[in-house]
Amino acid sequence: MLSKLEIYKAKRRISQYVHNTPVLTNSNLNKLTESQLYFKCENFQRSGSFKIRGATNAVMQLSKSDINKGIVTVSSGNHGAALSMAVTRLGGVTKVIMPKNTPKIKIDNVLRNGGKIIWCKPDYASREKVLNKVLKDTESILIHPYNDMRIIAGQGTVALELLNKYRDLDIIISPVSGGGLLSGILCLTKKINDKIKVYGAEPVEADDTYRSLVSGKIESNKTTNTICDGLRAQIGTFTFPIIQEKVSDILTVSEKDIISSMRLIWETMKIIVEPSCSITLAAILNNKNIFKGKKIGLILSGGNVDLGRLPWKTY
Amino acid sequence: MLSKLEIYKAKRRISQYVHNTPVLTNSNLNKLTESQLYFKCENFQRSGSFKIRGATNAVMQLSKSDINKGIVTVSSGNHGAALSMAVTRLGGVTKVIMPKNTPKIKIDNVLRNGGKIIWCKPDYASREKVLNKVLKDTESILIHPYNDMRIIAGQGTVALELLNKYRDLDIIISPVSGGGLLSGILCLTKKINDKIKVYGAEPVEADDTYRSLVSGKIESNKTTNTICDGLRAQIGTFTFPIIQEKVSDILTVSEKDIISSMRLIWETMKIIVEPSCSITLAAILNNKNIFKGKKIGLILSGGNVDLGRLPWKTY
Repeated sequence: MLSKLEIYKAKRRISQYVHNTPVLTNSNLNKLTESQLYFKCENFQRSGSFKIRGATNAVMQLSKSDINKGIVTVSSGNHGAALSMAVTRLGGVTKVIMPKNTPKIKIDNVLRNGGKIIWCKPDYASREKVLNKVLKDTESILIHPYNDMRIIAGQGTVALELLNKYRDLDIIISPVSGGGLLSGILCLTKKINDKIKVYGAEPVEADDTYRSLVSGKIESNKTTNTICDGLRAQIGTFTFPIIQEKVSDILTVSEKDIISSMRLIWETMKIIVEPSCSITLAAILNNKNIFKGKKIGLILSGGNVDLGRLPWKTY
Repeated sequence: MLSKLEIYKAKRRISQYVHNTPVLTNSNLNKLTESQLYFKCENFQRSGSFKIRGATNAVMQLSKSDINKGIVTVSSGNHGAALSMAVTRLGGVTKVIMPKNTPKIKIDNVLRNGGKIIWCKPDYASREKVLNKVLKDTESILIHPYNDMRIIAGQGTVALELLNKYRDLDIIISPVSGGGLLSGILCLTKKINDKIKVYGAEPVEADDTYRSLVSGKIESNKTTNTICDGLRAQIGTFTFPIIQEKVSDILTVSEKDIISSMRLIWETMKIIVEPSCSITLAAILNNKNIFKGKKIGLILSGGNVDLGRLPWKTY
C-alpha cells in the first residue's frame, strides 16, 4: 500500500513541471444535482490531462542511463503524450504502443511531445504482445500507465491539491480505467480523512472494475465499446487491491448518459472535457440517493477531445 | 465622455451580481504569437457573456416604478439574456426584440432568464421598426444594448478587473460590434494609463466601425454575413465618438481566420468561446507587426455557442 508520504514526495518532485489546476464551481450544476460540486480541472493540465503527474513522478526517479536506454509504454493516448513530454524534457526517447482506434488529437499529442508511436490492435492481448516484443528486442525501460507505484503516487497528487483547497469534502468521485488515478486518490484521501468517501465511475461498456469488485478477482473487459477512449484499459494487479480495500463503490454509466453529461459540462461550464471524465457528473445525476446534499469533488481528468468528431449531431 | 469614477461606481454597484472572471494564460499560444497573452474570460461570466455587467449597472439605477412598467431591448442574444436576468431578479419583465437568425442557445438563454422574445428580421431597419412600435404601444422603458452610458460604464468594469490584476499590459484588444464594450474599456484604460493601446477587432463581413473611422462618420454595415452573431450590430452615436477619439485602430478579420482562431482556443485552452471573441486572437495572429513581444489583454467576451452547430466539419 502506498504511504501518504510517497504522495507528498511526488508532489514536491513534480510541482515545478505540472500545474496546480483550478477548482471550478457552477451554480446551475449545483442546483441540478442538489449538491455542491467542486470540479478539479485536469483538462487544463499540461499535456491536456492528469497523466503528466504520474509520468513526471516516474521519470524523475530514473537514472541518466535508464533515460538513455529509451522508455516504452502502452497508452490509450494521454499517458503516452504525458510520458513523452516528461522524457523528452530529459533528452530521452519514448516509444508509445497505442491502439489503432486512438483519436487523432491524442496521436498528435504524442508526436508533438516527441514520442514515437508503435501501433497495436485495440485489445489487451495485442497490446501485451507488442509490448513484450519491444521489451525483448530493445533495452527500453517500461513505464506502465497505471500498474506502477510511482505512477499511482503521482496521480494521487491531484487529491492532495483538491483537499488542500477544500478539506471538508464529503465525497470524491473519479473515473476508473486501469485504476492509477483512483488508487492514488484513495491512498491519499483515506490517510487524510477516512470519513471522505471515494467513488469510481466506469462505462457500462467497459466495466471490468465493477465486475472485479463483485467477483473478488480481476476480470477482463467484455467489451471496450465506449466513447470513453481513456477508460478502456483493464484494472491492474497493483491498483485492484487498493481499490478493493478502500473504494466506496464503482458506479457504472451508459453511453447515452456519458454523452449527455459531456455536453452539459461544455454548455454550462464553457470548458472542454473528455467523456472519460464527464462520466463522473453522469454518475452523480444517476445516483442522487448517494450524492444529494453532499460536498463532492469531481476529477475532470482530461480535455483532449477531437473537435472534428463529436458524439452528438451537428449541422 | 464617461469618467473613470462612473466605472468605479458601476463596479461597486454590480459586484455582488457578476463574477470577477479569471484571467487565463497559455504557453502554447504565447509561443505561437510571440507575445504574452492574458485572456479575460467573460465566457465564464454569469449569463455566459460580459453583457450582464452593463445590464446590471443600468437596471440597478431604475426606480421601482420603471421596473413595473416593463423593460424592452433589442439584442443579438447575449444582452437580451443578461438584461432578462437582471430585471427578473428585481421582479420585472423584459421584452427582447431579436432577429430570427439568432442561435438557439441564445434564444434559450433569454427564455430561461425570464425574458419574452419579440421577433424581428435580421436587419437594422426591421429591428428599429419593431422597437418603435413597442415603445409607442406600451410604457416599456428602453435599455439599449450599447448606446447608453450606464451600459458603457458597466462594460468598462471588465478592463478595471483586468488592469487590477495586470497593470503593466501594453495593449488591450476587444471585439467591437455596437461599441459598448470597446468604449467602456477605452474610457477606463486611457484614464488609468494613457500608454496602453486599445484595439478593436471586427469581422470583414460586418466592418461598419472600421469604415466609420475611415470616413469620419457612422457608416452602416454593408453585410452582416458573419459567423460572429454577436458582432452584427451597428456602431452607436454614443460609442462612435469615444472610439474615434481613443482607439488605436480597428483590425478586420476574415471568416476563415475567425473560425480557425475559435478552434485554436478550444483545442489549446480547453475553453468554449464564441467566434465573436476568438476574433481578437485572429487579429493578433494576422498583425504580428503590432503585437509581437507585447503584453496583451484579450477580452473573451462570451461562450454561448450552439454546440449542435459548429463552423467546422464534424463526422
